[in-house]
Amino acid sequence: VDTLSSDRATSYKSGIEARHAARQEILTGPTAGFAAGYVQANLVILPQADAATFLRFCLANPRPCPLLAVSEPGERTLAKLGQDLDLARDASRYRVFRYGDAVEEPLAVDHLWRDDLVTFALGCSFTFEHALLADGIPLRHVASGRNVAMYRSNILLEPAGPFSGEMVVSMRPLRPADAIRAIQICTRYPSVHGAPIHLGHPAAIGIHDLAQPDFGDPVPVEADELPVFWACGVTPQHSLESAGLPFAITHSPGHMLITDLRDTQLALM
Amino acid sequence: VDTLSSDRATSYKSGIEARHAARQEILTGPTAGFAAGYVQANLVILPQADAATFLRFCLANPRPCPLLAVSEPGERTLAKLGQDLDLARDASRYRVFRYGDAVEEPLAVDHLWRDDLVTFALGCSFTFEHALLADGIPLRHVASGRNVAMYRSNILLEPAGPFSGEMVVSMRPLRPADAIRAIQICTRYPSVHGAPIHLGHPAAIGIHDLAQPDFGDPVPVEADELPVFWACGVTPQHSLESAGLPFAITHSPGHMLITDLRDTQLALM
Repeated sequence: VDTLSSDRATSYKSGIEARHAARQEILTGPTAGFAAGYVQANLVILPQADAATFLRFCLANPRPCPLLAVSEPGERTLAKLGQDLDLARDASRYRVFRYGDAVEEPLAVDHLWRDDLVTFALGCSFTFEHALLADGIPLRHVASGRNVAMYRSNILLEPAGPFSGEMVVSMRPLRPADAIRAIQICTRYPSVHGAPIHLGHPAAIGIHDLAQPDFGDPVPVEADELPVFWACGVTPQHSLESAGLPFAITHSPGHMLITDLRDTQLALM
Repeated sequence: VDTLSSDRATSYKSGIEARHAARQEILTGPTAGFAAGYVQANLVILPQADAATFLRFCLANPRPCPLLAVSEPGERTLAKLGQDLDLARDASRYRVFRYGDAVEEPLAVDHLWRDDLVTFALGCSFTFEHALLADGIPLRHVASGRNVAMYRSNILLEPAGPFSGEMVVSMRPLRPADAIRAIQICTRYPSVHGAPIHLGHPAAIGIHDLAQPDFGDPVPVEADELPVFWACGVTPQHSLESAGLPFAITHSPGHMLITDLRDTQLALM
């Protein structure tokens, strides 16, 4: 297993191949670019007592928290997302929270599984990035092998119980014609954050220095470009931390669950 | 007839009512806001010898020259646009060109009609403006009773025969979230110029002073807004002038042909 580095794992041809590799703890790293064309999902796993409130939170904030699927309590599979899928082992890495603090980043959470856990699978920006790249729109952070730049905005989320806070946004610099085309393409994908929520004028959403992202890597915005902002999947994880629940599990950032869904199947049309 | 001012004509409830008023020379002024909800069309009327080339020009430049309908040679009606429709009398005013010069602005052109004239009806921004306003997006030039600001851009048109030149663009200042929503709405309306072609960075399309439009009225862009640019229906008229054809007729700018089509019927979905 040690000799099979994640670099070699770029040969995964499908979601199920990647999931089996994750389950066997061969695939343990970030999943960006793996099983190209297959939908990758953010995971939030909560006790049933908190799940109903978190569901309300997602429905009230669909741009940062777009729901792909919700499991039955205790269920370790989600047929909507794939066959032979184990929610406790198939993400490449997990993050365990106790009272809001990340305490562990295990490769599986089967040892922590409980009959009352409800899993939320949320859409991920990889799907729309794939659609943008396929259309010929350049994404600088992808080309330069960086993480996307993410910022805490001043856009308040609709609160639900203990879940609240500000929307985290991701930023991609685009030339104006590409920004317009990106808005058109992303509008077709509401379940992976949908259209951008802002462009130009970063200060209008509380971002005062684009060179200092709160998460990810800085990406320069050239003189002929506009910063284009999308609601970001880091938002629910951020709200989860500040909610301080006794127990919660997510995927580890960037270490997603790869599904059997094709990216284009999430398009409205 | 004199006592029936165009102000009173705002009561026109439909395209056919407005056309009858134009035919009777009761409606003789600009048609903006008349017969609300009905599609208004730009007209270009050319001898058959030039029409095939102009048709190629429109097809090669669909954003500034979106075709709604093309008549048979000599035909004075266009069933696709409305019943009991007289292309030679139903626009509220016409403009006659000889060798590229506007020589006359008559209320009707039946005295100039020829058996070889082909009529092109092109989509008009009123349709998408109606859709934007209906969605709650403010349009400053409408609110302040001005003409939209229009500029000669440096975007070169695809030439066809004598027709060529630069695209004329209209500009509407919008806040970022409204600009994103406007792109979504206008994308549904390709036959009335479709999505914006540019936003922000006016100099990138050759516009160096927004306060000095080439046509229409200046409209201020506030600090929290972006200038959003659409391909403009003045473009074909501009290309027509520079082509210097011996004979051509258009509607007089702002004095459109009002059709029986509903604005929403032009939406793709």
